Amino acid sequence: MKEMAVELGDRSYPIFIGDGLLSSKQIWSRLCRTGQIMVVSNETIAPLYLNQVMDALAPRKISTVVLSDGEKYKTLDAFNQVITQLLEKAYSRDCTLVALGGGVVGDITGFAAACYQRGVDYIQVPTTLLSQVDSAVGGKTAVNHMLGKNMIGVFYQPVAVIADTQVLSTLPDREMSAGLAEVIKYGLIRDPDFFCWLENNIERLLARDTTCLVHAIEQSCRNKSDIVSLDERESGIRAILNFGHTFGHAIETATSYTQFLHGEAIAIGMLMAADLSKRHGWLSAESVERVWKLLNRANLPIGLPTKLKAEELRAIMAIDKKARNAKLFLVLLKQIGEAFLTDQYREELLTDTLSEFILAGG
Amino acid sequence: MKEMAVELGDRSYPIFIGDGLLSSKQIWSRLCRTGQIMVVSNETIAPLYLNQVMDALAPRKISTVVLSDGEKYKTLDAFNQVITQLLEKAYSRDCTLVALGGGVVGDITGFAAACYQRGVDYIQVPTTLLSQVDSAVGGKTAVNHMLGKNMIGVFYQPVAVIADTQVLSTLPDREMSAGLAEVIKYGLIRDPDFFCWLENNIERLLARDTTCLVHAIEQSCRNKSDIVSLDERESGIRAILNFGHTFGHAIETATSYTQFLHGEAIAIGMLMAADLSKRHGWLSAESVERVWKLLNRANLPIGLPTKLKAEELRAIMAIDKKARNAKLFLVLLKQIGEAFLTDQYREELLTDTLSEFILAGG
Repeated sequence: MKEMAVELGDRSYPIFIGDGLLSSKQIWSRLCRTGQIMVVSNETIAPLYLNQVMDALAPRKISTVVLSDGEKYKTLDAFNQVITQLLEKAYSRDCTLVALGGGVVGDITGFAAACYQRGVDYIQVPTTLLSQVDSAVGGKTAVNHMLGKNMIGVFYQPVAVIADTQVLSTLPDREMSAGLAEVIKYGLIRDPDFFCWLENNIERLLARDTTCLVHAIEQSCRNKSDIVSLDERESGIRAILNFGHTFGHAIETATSYTQFLHGEAIAIGMLMAADLSKRHGWLSAESVERVWKLLNRANLPIGLPTKLKAEELRAIMAIDKKARNAKLFLVLLKQIGEAFLTDQYREELLTDTLSEFILAGG
Repeated sequence: MKEMAVELGDRSYPIFIGDGLLSSKQIWSRLCRTGQIMVVSNETIAPLYLNQVMDALAPRKISTVVLSDGEKYKTLDAFNQVITQLLEKAYSRDCTLVALGGGVVGDITGFAAACYQRGVDYIQVPTTLLSQVDSAVGGKTAVNHMLGKNMIGVFYQPVAVIADTQVLSTLPDREMSAGLAEVIKYGLIRDPDFFCWLENNIERLLARDTTCLVHAIEQSCRNKSDIVSLDERESGIRAILNFGHTFGHAIETATSYTQFLHGEAIAIGMLMAADLSKRHGWLSAESVERVWKLLNRANLPIGLPTKLKAEELRAIMAIDKKARNAKLFLVLLKQIGEAFLTDQYREELLTDTLSEFILAGG
């Protein structure tokens, strides 16, 4: 088992990474100092892993809430469902919520923990690669609003993250690849050595090699946690974590969230950002080629449906919440392992990039 | 005009206290660094003061949300109404919400500001004495749940508080007295000199003497802000701000929030706490008499309806959220100006106190 810390002063917390941690009574004992625990999960994950967690937590008093599975259920209603359950069971401020599931469960549970009686403890137990390397770390919580994703939420750090590689054995291949998109992102934005390591090990990761998985999750969490420690509330450097995301969100919106998984949209978005960087002479053609090859080997898509229009994507990007005031900022690359935030790009080159990817998908 | 600071490191903020501040273009210019502003108010306050604020903020881009007036509208729905308005008007992260109203408007607006895109600025413009000396300062935000008051919320500090004594001219007498209950509380829990000053000036305050009001609000905010600076998230000393509140909340619940204003219930609660302190020999009979006299002169009630039962009140107190685990903690008095948190009281004396006040109301 690997253990690392997210350094945030009095809000610091450990991340545990290893095989079979869900069932480790030792870890749960260390984390749950209180008697009242509520495990929040979803219909897909609960049948697979809820019993393991309950056994490891026994004989503590535990309630469970099982939410519907899917991004469309990441709503204020689901949040209120958790709160209502806590109140009906008379949970006090001294309770702990456990988020057992992917990013949706983690985001709802974190937000509920942040708001229940103005804040109770919560532990992230991410069950997808994507949430293990991304959403479970860093304290971003939220639910969606009809008019926008993640529009209602707060920054609220968990007391711990437990990333169990064993749960990835039941993860569908497509979701595994989608998770690898975010893993590759860390190499691209600030860790060239890790990018090289991924080039040497991507097939082992797809095959769920435990040692490789632990290393990849550890490096991802370390990179993310370094950035979060520097800028917890995303007022500066943390923005580079959005590499590929302004493009990716536009792709998800334009395809009504039906065609691509989040990680897949981000993969295309990262390649777009690399391509746009190249068009400005900031990134070499060889580097773009390396990005393309690695994403391709990870079984990630690289083109868009031809029915989309470049102007449509551009318009959606403009209303992305990362747009500050007038000009849209983008995270681009100077080289593999070095991202930067800029509004000094040329609009016509952005159009060229968008058009190229729509053609590539044809 | 008086200006003081709530010291909370990088979350510090000023409180402005004075006559006619609502209309001060100078103050608004200093506070509103961003172009997008949304004023949240209610049906009672908006007709009286919204135009003044809009004029002072002109020519900035401003939207308004006018909520229904009353504690029963302090709901997740009202919160969502503010969020929806922000999204429909495409407000970015760089916006400022202005809470123009009493505690309900302040609590909803603060919670919406905390959660909109994970946090935007907000300014408290409390229009009741109660909110000027209590809820507007300290960053407690919340909405109610059917199963409990203030159960959904977070700690989130405003960027400023503007307490305009002029708005108190339209405040009904009964609400004025209710606000004075919280003012008197600060004298009781940690400021004996202020308590003496109140004994000398209570009638002037009831008559809305501006100089006296400014002083009373300043001393109240200074006391509250000292405590909040020491314990922002209520893990220790901040609990003494709940003096009278465990009793008061039980009274409000037992009478279904129809018979007493919050401040009135707190007044009875404070007298109960003083009485219980006396029964343990912790507070002199003379001190209890002084508390009783001052509350009486402030036109605050001192007895309870005889149809209530002591056991009923005791049961409700037990589920108050300030109850930690098994034993109910109470804030009691060692002397006027010195409160302490304890679970070392005798249960039968608590019953005696509760019974006495029910008889007193007969």
